[in-house]
Amino acid sequence: MTATGPVNGRLVPVTPAGEKLCAAIDEVAGFLADEATRNDAAGRYARASIDRINEAGVLAACAPVDDGGFGVESLYDLGVATSRLAEADASVAIAAYMHLALSWYYARTVRCAPPGQPAEPRQREWLRAIGRRQMVVCSSVAEPGTNAWQMTTTATRSGGDWIINGRKVLASISPSATHFYTRVRAETADGPMQGSVMIPLDAAGVEVRDDWDGLGLRGSGSGEVVFSGVVLPEDAVSPRGRWGQWDRRGMEGRAASSTPLLAVYLGIAETARTAALASLRAGLAGARDRTHSAGTKAMLAEVEVRMAAARGALRSALSDIDAHVTHAAPRSLPVEVGQALMAQCVAAGMAVERAAVEVVDLAMQICGGRSYAGGHPLGRLCRDVRAGWFMRPHAPAEEWLDFLAEWALREPDGTLGR
Amino acid sequence: MTATGPVNGRLVPVTPAGEKLCAAIDEVAGFLADEATRNDAAGRYARASIDRINEAGVLAACAPVDDGGFGVESLYDLGVATSRLAEADASVAIAAYMHLALSWYYARTVRCAPPGQPAEPRQREWLRAIGRRQMVVCSSVAEPGTNAWQMTTTATRSGGDWIINGRKVLASISPSATHFYTRVRAETADGPMQGSVMIPLDAAGVEVRDDWDGLGLRGSGSGEVVFSGVVLPEDAVSPRGRWGQWDRRGMEGRAASSTPLLAVYLGIAETARTAALASLRAGLAGARDRTHSAGTKAMLAEVEVRMAAARGALRSALSDIDAHVTHAAPRSLPVEVGQALMAQCVAAGMAVERAAVEVVDLAMQICGGRSYAGGHPLGRLCRDVRAGWFMRPHAPAEEWLDFLAEWALREPDGTLGR
Amino acid sequence: MTATGPVNGRLVPVTPAGEKLCAAIDEVAGFLADEATRNDAAGRYARASIDRINEAGVLAACAPVDDGGFGVESLYDLGVATSRLAEADASVAIAAYMHLALSWYYARTVRCAPPGQPAEPRQREWLRAIGRRQMVVCSSVAEPGTNAWQMTTTATRSGGDWIINGRKVLASISPSATHFYTRVRAETADGPMQGSVMIPLDAAGVEVRDDWDGLGLRGSGSGEVVFSGVVLPEDAVSPRGRWGQWDRRGMEGRAASSTPLLAVYLGIAETARTAALASLRAGLAGARDRTHSAGTKAMLAEVEVRMAAARGALRSALSDIDAHVTHAAPRSLPVEVGQALMAQCVAAGMAVERAAVEVVDLAMQICGGRSYAGGHPLGRLCRDVRAGWFMRPHAPAEEWLDFLAEWALREPDGTLGR
Amino acid sequence: MTATGPVNGRLVPVTPAGEKLCAAIDEVAGFLADEATRNDAAGRYARASIDRINEAGVLAACAPVDDGGFGVESLYDLGVATSRLAEADASVAIAAYMHLALSWYYARTVRCAPPGQPAEPRQREWLRAIGRRQMVVCSSVAEPGTNAWQMTTTATRSGGDWIINGRKVLASISPSATHFYTRVRAETADGPMQGSVMIPLDAAGVEVRDDWDGLGLRGSGSGEVVFSGVVLPEDAVSPRGRWGQWDRRGMEGRAASSTPLLAVYLGIAETARTAALASLRAGLAGARDRTHSAGTKAMLAEVEVRMAAARGALRSALSDIDAHVTHAAPRSLPVEVGQALMAQCVAAGMAVERAAVEVVDLAMQICGGRSYAGGHPLGRLCRDVRAGWFMRPHAPAEEWLDFLAEWALREPDGTLGR
Repeated sequence: MTATGPVNGRLVPVTPAGEKLCAAIDEVAGFLADEATRNDAAGRYARASIDRINEAGVLAACAPVDDGGFGVESLYDLGVATSRLAEADASVAIAAYMHLALSWYYARTVRCAPPGQPAEPRQREWLRAIGRRQMVVCSSVAEPGTNAWQMTTTATRSGGDWIINGRKVLASISPSATHFYTRVRAETADGPMQGSVMIPLDAAGVEVRDDWDGLGLRGSGSGEVVFSGVVLPEDAVSPRGRWGQWDRRGMEGRAASSTPLLAVYLGIAETARTAALASLRAGLAGARDRTHSAGTKAMLAEVEVRMAAARGALRSALSDIDAHVTHAAPRSLPVEVGQALMAQCVAAGMAVERAAVEVVDLAMQICGGRSYAGGHPLGRLCRDVRAGWFMRPHAPAEEWLDFLAEWALREPDGTLGR
Repeated sequence: MTATGPVNGRLVPVTPAGEKLCAAIDEVAGFLADEATRNDAAGRYARASIDRINEAGVLAACAPVDDGGFGVESLYDLGVATSRLAEADASVAIAAYMHLALSWYYARTVRCAPPGQPAEPRQREWLRAIGRRQMVVCSSVAEPGTNAWQMTTTATRSGGDWIINGRKVLASISPSATHFYTRVRAETADGPMQGSVMIPLDAAGVEVRDDWDGLGLRGSGSGEVVFSGVVLPEDAVSPRGRWGQWDRRGMEGRAASSTPLLAVYLGIAETARTAALASLRAGLAGARDRTHSAGTKAMLAEVEVRMAAARGALRSALSDIDAHVTHAAPRSLPVEVGQALMAQCVAAGMAVERAAVEVVDLAMQICGGRSYAGGHPLGRLCRDVRAGWFMRPHAPAEEWLDFLAEWALREPDGTLGR
Repeated sequence: MTATGPVNGRLVPVTPAGEKLCAAIDEVAGFLADEATRNDAAGRYARASIDRINEAGVLAACAPVDDGGFGVESLYDLGVATSRLAEADASVAIAAYMHLALSWYYARTVRCAPPGQPAEPRQREWLRAIGRRQMVVCSSVAEPGTNAWQMTTTATRSGGDWIINGRKVLASISPSATHFYTRVRAETADGPMQGSVMIPLDAAGVEVRDDWDGLGLRGSGSGEVVFSGVVLPEDAVSPRGRWGQWDRRGMEGRAASSTPLLAVYLGIAETARTAALASLRAGLAGARDRTHSAGTKAMLAEVEVRMAAARGALRSALSDIDAHVTHAAPRSLPVEVGQALMAQCVAAGMAVERAAVEVVDLAMQICGGRSYAGGHPLGRLCRDVRAGWFMRPHAPAEEWLDFLAEWALREPDGTLGR
Repeated sequence: MTATGPVNGRLVPVTPAGEKLCAAIDEVAGFLADEATRNDAAGRYARASIDRINEAGVLAACAPVDDGGFGVESLYDLGVATSRLAEADASVAIAAYMHLALSWYYARTVRCAPPGQPAEPRQREWLRAIGRRQMVVCSSVAEPGTNAWQMTTTATRSGGDWIINGRKVLASISPSATHFYTRVRAETADGPMQGSVMIPLDAAGVEVRDDWDGLGLRGSGSGEVVFSGVVLPEDAVSPRGRWGQWDRRGMEGRAASSTPLLAVYLGIAETARTAALASLRAGLAGARDRTHSAGTKAMLAEVEVRMAAARGALRSALSDIDAHVTHAAPRSLPVEVGQALMAQCVAAGMAVERAAVEVVDLAMQICGGRSYAGGHPLGRLCRDVRAGWFMRPHAPAEEWLDFLAEWALREPDGTLGR
């Protein structure tokens, strides 16, 4: 049962580590919110904000305490923290989360390693660097028009080395990154394989374009990263199964990394709700008190109902993901559990996304014409919140519906795909 | 954090007592479901089902273990149990819950009595009788067209006695009740007061009409109870404040009794979802495999999204009510907390109710024309689920929207009602 | 442009013939409405109502004036009339419309026959019989689990005769029918063909079961009709293309017969709206004036918005169908026009159906708990309106979505079906 | 009945004058669409586009043919033309419509003047100037935070003159205007009166700020206009009733000017729909064919259903407004008819607005991530379409719901406002 905390409001952390993380975020929230408006207007990467949260230890959150982090293990709390960041600036939240999700994964790998099978030393090292605030990882996996198991970025052998060539998009936080986690098509003697690679910024041939120009999330630095003949040592590419073959065991991990991400959209909705209420309270004394109108009341009540659905769906999904994944070694869960977690993530994600879009739209209407003026925070939220359509926790994004339908009709053994 | 259990599915209990209660319900669920169809067709009270769950100890659930009950304290688990009953028969669920909510309240009063202020002996007695399965309480408060604080049923003095006269409606479970909890306008020397009374079935002048004829919940026994000159001793009427005066401290109690009730509608939705999937699976081999249709898939996915919102909103509301109320003495919480819990209850209630109505409607469409035939279970669910509109956890029912809007705009000290 | 008439209200006829028909319906509307409640409670066919509208000439509406009919040619007006019938009793509307659609088709065939190619004499005869109020046709085409081009009812040759065997369902108005229009699999020397047949009630082997027992439309007489070795002369079966082959030219005719049918659901919504307003007006003087509540206002306004969408979508669809079909010979339109009309019919149908379902649901909530009592008219509308899900103007019903998507993506030459 | 034209598509004109106007728009549509993207990116007034449509005679549309106009009388056709403009650029559509609505009103006044009561000579003159393309009128009425009957812009007497002082907002098309139609508080010997005034651009003290910086409609020139001591002759101010007093007869005129304006949002939806289909067709050959996905199909079908509702509601509202208003002298209709037309306008407006917002949102999702890139037309439509919330045909905008509820519960004599 979730502990006490303020009832009927935004999510609250459930572990002491999560509480510390949220407290650290609260201290910089004002700065982030101010920067958000400026970055949005200028279409500029939120560099100062990312620097600030890194100084505050937010990016080190998942590193063990001994390494300088907060030792956050709970995905529930990672979600809560992401939502708090998003309340201040959704661009920062999504940028930071990309790094946090990877660092959480390394920590889980180390923490949950089965007896006698310690995690790879690299992950241990990365965590230490993250804890020292010296490593910011950019998840640069996405390519235009393809899937994670059909990457076109290549890794080819040259003597004992790998040569990486390709172009990645939507690489949030890339302008601040010291490392780039990516996935490739590795050409091996056994044919093409999927492979994962960590590429350091200082390798020759890495280009961060910082060219993100989106309708929203304008400060997220989600531009392109290009790898041109980047040379890496033999052990830099980890194999992940045959190229082009979708991995049904991977759902558990995808659900783990996607569920807290949904909190970005909840955070946007929380701020939109707050702005709507503030605008009405500000108008109470004036000539244009809108609170007497049944129309205003209907919108306010609708906001509350939508928030209840969004908060509830996300709390449930985060609780369940914690209960199953947080203390289990990666890829150790039954396939059906991974599917069920992914289905919950997708369904909860749609519930959150719809509610968030609607709450922002309602908040603008409650606030009235001033919310339509250039530079008003609600105008930014209106654009930011729609990123959810394209960052849905299932790829390709438009097939969430197909996946849920297939899952609902799955065979008892977890076979999908009628 | 909610414990493990099957992910992405119906709610599961969080305490051992709740688990025992749910196990007891599972054993009789088949019988209840069979009876549900028959009672609905005949427009008949579910007497056999109520007898059966009473034998199984379900109605004794909130009595302490020493008294023969399951010792269920958690409102979360009371909600889960109610949802399980509703999966089998929503009529039984609503009838049973009316009794369970009162018995839970007596148990809380006894359990949470502050040191040195023991609860009233009567409540202790009632719990013992309930634990022995000898007392079934009917909440017979509602009167047509008025509110709980403006009752027209009267209690007048006659010598040392009270004489009760009035007509109550929507008295679910009344045909099985041994006692009737009711509220009256007590005419006292200080003017009219609100009063609460427990009236035994065997008192002269008690008439149970068993005349419920609704569009749905046809087995719930929600007919009229008439009190004609019922004579009760002086201490039978407990005062509850001035007549006609609404009690802002009462919200906490109302939220506590209303939140688990929402589970009735979730249970209906769970069964509708199950029926829709079963009908598709049954058709897979035949000429009319509907699963290839994008229309069918869209409806299936929509069901999952709605269920995620409904389950999530209810889980959150139940968690919060447990966190604040279950271990607190009645009427001991700050007014603002009671309001916040009530607002969460109303908002979550709307989220659940809307989702449940929609899921049943979708299930009928997924199932196809056969669901429109007389006697099909989905036809019953379609009628049952709409009871939610008239049993909303805020009176009068149509004012839920006004309440939420007022709450959203409340003053910091909890003053409502702009 | 639609003529004057009362603005912002229910649909009004656009031809004098339609006005006469509506006037005739208005005269019997009170009787129909009274009967509706009784028939629904008893689960009884609306025989008296059908008799009454036949006496009033309603069933003769499409016969030429010289034959005793009203000479209604406009499908717009046929829709308006159907909506008026449905305002009084949706069961009668749907039953009557099944006959009216066929009689309208015969009249169109006769009226629009190209010069030198007169219509078949039979259709002329039928119109005369209909005009004399001596012929009521039941469209008994539907079979469980199959499509119109894959009928399992057979017509086999025996000497010079046809022998018909099969079972038809959802044969609305069948208990009053003198004739049964049906479709069969005709076994010919060239293999199985689709065929259409008119079977008189007095042929040996015709059994009308009058066994409809649905959740709603309980007075519509939509039970089974069984043909057991019915012997018909050689010319009784008209060929309609190869069995099992879907006819893309048929869309125009299906759109023509389906579009006015949508008015059944609009009529239900109109009556639900009227009932909701009446219940509020009735409560104005009493203690329970609900009109001050923002919740009530929000529901009222929502009803108006939904009605605007439903009325508008239906008016447009009816106008367009009249503009293209009413004065054209059957099967003379380009395939693309037929598809476009069908797509409009389906899209408008969904808009009307959704609005009607929502308006009835809102009307119950506006009206309050009394609408949930057994026998309340809104309870009947709540069940009747859901028939729309299973009588959608595209078969199979669940594939409306697939059809609209295919149509939207059609090739310029009208090729569907990616 | 609306004439033939292509079925199931965008609206088509119903008069020859309307057809000519639409043909003129079609010729410049490509130019407007190209400019739209540029103006949006630059946040720049669509001066070149307004110049172009003025050259093409679009702004002269409502002037009589003899004066050089198209002689458009039908509000239906004015709506169709507005929707065509909006398909190319919603900013231009709203800017142009502000001028068109006023010129239509002058033409109606002249055309419908009762025998023996000719219209004012000024309106005749204005029409001639408009026909010669020498007069562009900006409707500069709105002030922040007040209503049309409580203007704070003042007209005070000074000798025989009026002196105008005040600030107007949302003055679309103002950077191209030669004249400003405005409303003022006229200080007279009888106290404050409402007054209407036409102010020429070349009067001393008129300042057009061209400072519109909105989330959307960025090319509409909807900035501020300031009047500082503008001197006008005695007859320049026309009285319109007591200041602060709402005029129930004014609804008819408001409905007339507001209903075609709704077509802006329909036009946006048409273009969004077209863009979504184009993006799918473009992807058919490639690796990312999205059309096989049930999710994509569900969105496509939803677009069609929403369009059917939007087109239908608008067609009906435009038909009715033409049937009642177009050939009637201003302020000659019964109050109840004006109210009913206004209620239809508001309800249809909500139906159109909701559908348009939803269609744009769906179109972005159908199109996929590229629609989220800066400069994509759908991103502009997403911002433009939300202007509807703040330009609703009822002031104050948030009270549309209250108005509809009051109207639904009106007294038979048209008294509103319970």
